[in-house]
Amino acid sequence: MHAITPSFTPSGVPTSYYNLFAAAKLEQAPPLDPQSGQPMAPDKLAALFPMALLEQEMTSEVHVPVPGPVLEAYAAFRPTPLRRAALFEKALGTRCTILYKYEGASPVGSHKLNTALAQAFANQQQGVRRIATETGAGQWGTALAYACRRFEIDCSVYMVRVSFDQKPARRTMMELYGATVRASPSEATTFGRAVLADNPSHPGSLGIAISEAIEDAVTHPGTKYSLGSVLNHVLLHQTVIGQEALRQLDELGLFPDVVIGCHGGGSNFAGVAFPFVHHKLDGKALRIIAAEPQSCPTLTRGEYRYDHGDTAKLTPLLKMYTLGSDFVPDPIHAGGLRYHGAAPQVSALVNRGLVEAQAFEQMETFRAAHTFAISEGVIPAPESAHAIAATVRAAREADQAGEPRVILFNMSGHGLLELGAYQAYMQARQAESKPAP
Amino acid sequence: MHAITPSFTPSGVPTSYYNLFAAAKLEQAPPLDPQSGQPMAPDKLAALFPMALLEQEMTSEVHVPVPGPVLEAYAAFRPTPLRRAALFEKALGTRCTILYKYEGASPVGSHKLNTALAQAFANQQQGVRRIATETGAGQWGTALAYACRRFEIDCSVYMVRVSFDQKPARRTMMELYGATVRASPSEATTFGRAVLADNPSHPGSLGIAISEAIEDAVTHPGTKYSLGSVLNHVLLHQTVIGQEALRQLDELGLFPDVVIGCHGGGSNFAGVAFPFVHHKLDGKALRIIAAEPQSCPTLTRGEYRYDHGDTAKLTPLLKMYTLGSDFVPDPIHAGGLRYHGAAPQVSALVNRGLVEAQAFEQMETFRAAHTFAISEGVIPAPESAHAIAATVRAAREADQAGEPRVILFNMSGHGLLELGAYQAYMQARQAESKPAP
Repeated sequence: MHAITPSFTPSGVPTSYYNLFAAAKLEQAPPLDPQSGQPMAPDKLAALFPMALLEQEMTSEVHVPVPGPVLEAYAAFRPTPLRRAALFEKALGTRCTILYKYEGASPVGSHKLNTALAQAFANQQQGVRRIATETGAGQWGTALAYACRRFEIDCSVYMVRVSFDQKPARRTMMELYGATVRASPSEATTFGRAVLADNPSHPGSLGIAISEAIEDAVTHPGTKYSLGSVLNHVLLHQTVIGQEALRQLDELGLFPDVVIGCHGGGSNFAGVAFPFVHHKLDGKALRIIAAEPQSCPTLTRGEYRYDHGDTAKLTPLLKMYTLGSDFVPDPIHAGGLRYHGAAPQVSALVNRGLVEAQAFEQMETFRAAHTFAISEGVIPAPESAHAIAATVRAAREADQAGEPRVILFNMSGHGLLELGAYQAYMQARQAESKPAP
Repeated sequence: MHAITPSFTPSGVPTSYYNLFAAAKLEQAPPLDPQSGQPMAPDKLAALFPMALLEQEMTSEVHVPVPGPVLEAYAAFRPTPLRRAALFEKALGTRCTILYKYEGASPVGSHKLNTALAQAFANQQQGVRRIATETGAGQWGTALAYACRRFEIDCSVYMVRVSFDQKPARRTMMELYGATVRASPSEATTFGRAVLADNPSHPGSLGIAISEAIEDAVTHPGTKYSLGSVLNHVLLHQTVIGQEALRQLDELGLFPDVVIGCHGGGSNFAGVAFPFVHHKLDGKALRIIAAEPQSCPTLTRGEYRYDHGDTAKLTPLLKMYTLGSDFVPDPIHAGGLRYHGAAPQVSALVNRGLVEAQAFEQMETFRAAHTFAISEGVIPAPESAHAIAATVRAAREADQAGEPRVILFNMSGHGLLELGAYQAYMQARQAESKPAP
């Protein structure tokens, strides 16, 4: 297959995105028009996305150049650190070598900025004046709000109401960057009003917020829509993570036996994993693990079929693992992993057995994240906590097998705006440790 | 004077602390015993601090080695980035070059970890099993809580009650790291009980919390006290910041015309500034500015005299700028700058005219921080916002003088746990911009 020959800036930022499916000539089922059931006509998508992103969505180029202004923006925080978690290893008592790529080092605190900057720039180039999007926990909305500010585009965010009410810090951050933030379901769209008419105190969901953002985009002049995960071009932008990690590992003289990312829509997972899938296809013995919540077990218990990405069924039908577009996951703290579907590209790799999926119960993820926090200091996002739980499991298996393995996981973001979740965890743990009355 | 010839690890972390007062043979008035008024006997201080720290407090060594395990701990997050704030320059429309040293990149989010690790290690080496301390806004308590965890020491934190109640995130972070956190005034000390007897709903102050932590230390076996600023050894530990900055600037072929830090107790300011004071004494034309709040104008409006560091008058008398040990500053958001006194070493430099002090009104600091956040993405701590306001002022002056200067400021921490303060700022700004009814 096509070799990975990326080039880097002198400081170590990749100058191109890595297109695994083109490199490995992997097949992907096309998106279908939700009305006709036929493959989606590109001009229909052009109502939602600028051409440059649609080209990236479908490109057969292997190394897609990072535009200059985006590379310049990356230079402020990339390459993100690759760190050995030696104290975490010690706390686990494992003989494995554990390394993590730290995307929480971005100014907005997560990997989402990698694609937000690329998307905002592509929109700016096409003269788009306004972008509408949805956000669940708020990581994506925060990233896009800053990226839009940077490229001088107005930003309209539909934030799932339960998060809007419970996470004022995220909302403040978006507003500080200049975005307009509405609780979804909102009065601003026909779909939102319909949902509210049915249930005025509806807590909202990602599927509903997507529907509202799309409606906003198609009904406002000069406005496009933007998505923070799932689609090919979003995953493509995130491959800067894995490319950097490969290079940083190489400098340490290491290559991983296991690569782990948490999985919600698929973008941070693909970002770290896809450049490594390449090596797996080349014959390297390598496990690649997607870690998801048991309460939203898309990859482990979903069906692999065409489904809608949103509740109002406005998005194209995508071939993916899905729990059904009307599935409403439990309100776990890892809001970024509460999505009924999965990226079609990640789904295809799971279906082919190139990627394993594992599901974790919430308490297990917080236990792992807590152990990590008290040893390494860094407090992980509840989403990233799933990758850490998978790391603990992989280390235990390696120790039992008597094989000290090298494990790499992606820390998609920090948890500083989710400390309430940690407080709830500590209380739950205390309650657990008390004997029954 | 003695040259700065520090050595660095291959990755760029200084292997020694820089002792400006020894290098430049600057005089410092000794601490006095609060009971006798005579110079403090070292053995009395030994009840509070381990010998290694007392030696650092009084040492005449110029380059004080960083102990191996501390250097190892630094390696996880140091060197911190030195970044050019090009977008901030653009937003200000200045011809100056603005650079910032980003201490918010530490796992706990501020510069405080530099001294917390050094102090926890020194205590561990002496067999200390428990450390008591106070914290205002929570930055220091968080740092010490993690450092104690790392060096396996119990940590008891007295947190100013108003912060304890209003900043649950900081408290959660400390408890996550394993510290015991009490609202001060507390029922746990004689002094705390006396204050509460007088006023059961007393909001607390840093001076009271210090008194409680000292009482805790001297009344519990195996316990020492720890302070996050003011004292010589604390400032010494922070000089890793300025040493790194000098080296990073040198790699860019730059030397600053202006060096700026915010000033509360003095440690982050001294950390960035002291290695540069050296060059000023050597004849470089260089302005060094300490930025403080107008509501707690210790350096700009305080008296230079001996005063107590705490409310119960348990600490040694220190020669410093002071507003009086019973001064209660307004409850501004920059809790870390609400201290009636100042580091004796910083005070001596201000008194000699080597360091300028400037005071800023709260709204001005948030305006500057907001401009910074929307251009660079990083949201500054309200304390650091004072350094940014001073940077804006210095840039304006340079532009008016027609001299494009190089300005370096220290960003002591990020403001992700202070987003409520930014929300209040945005509301105040909105109210300001509305015409009178």
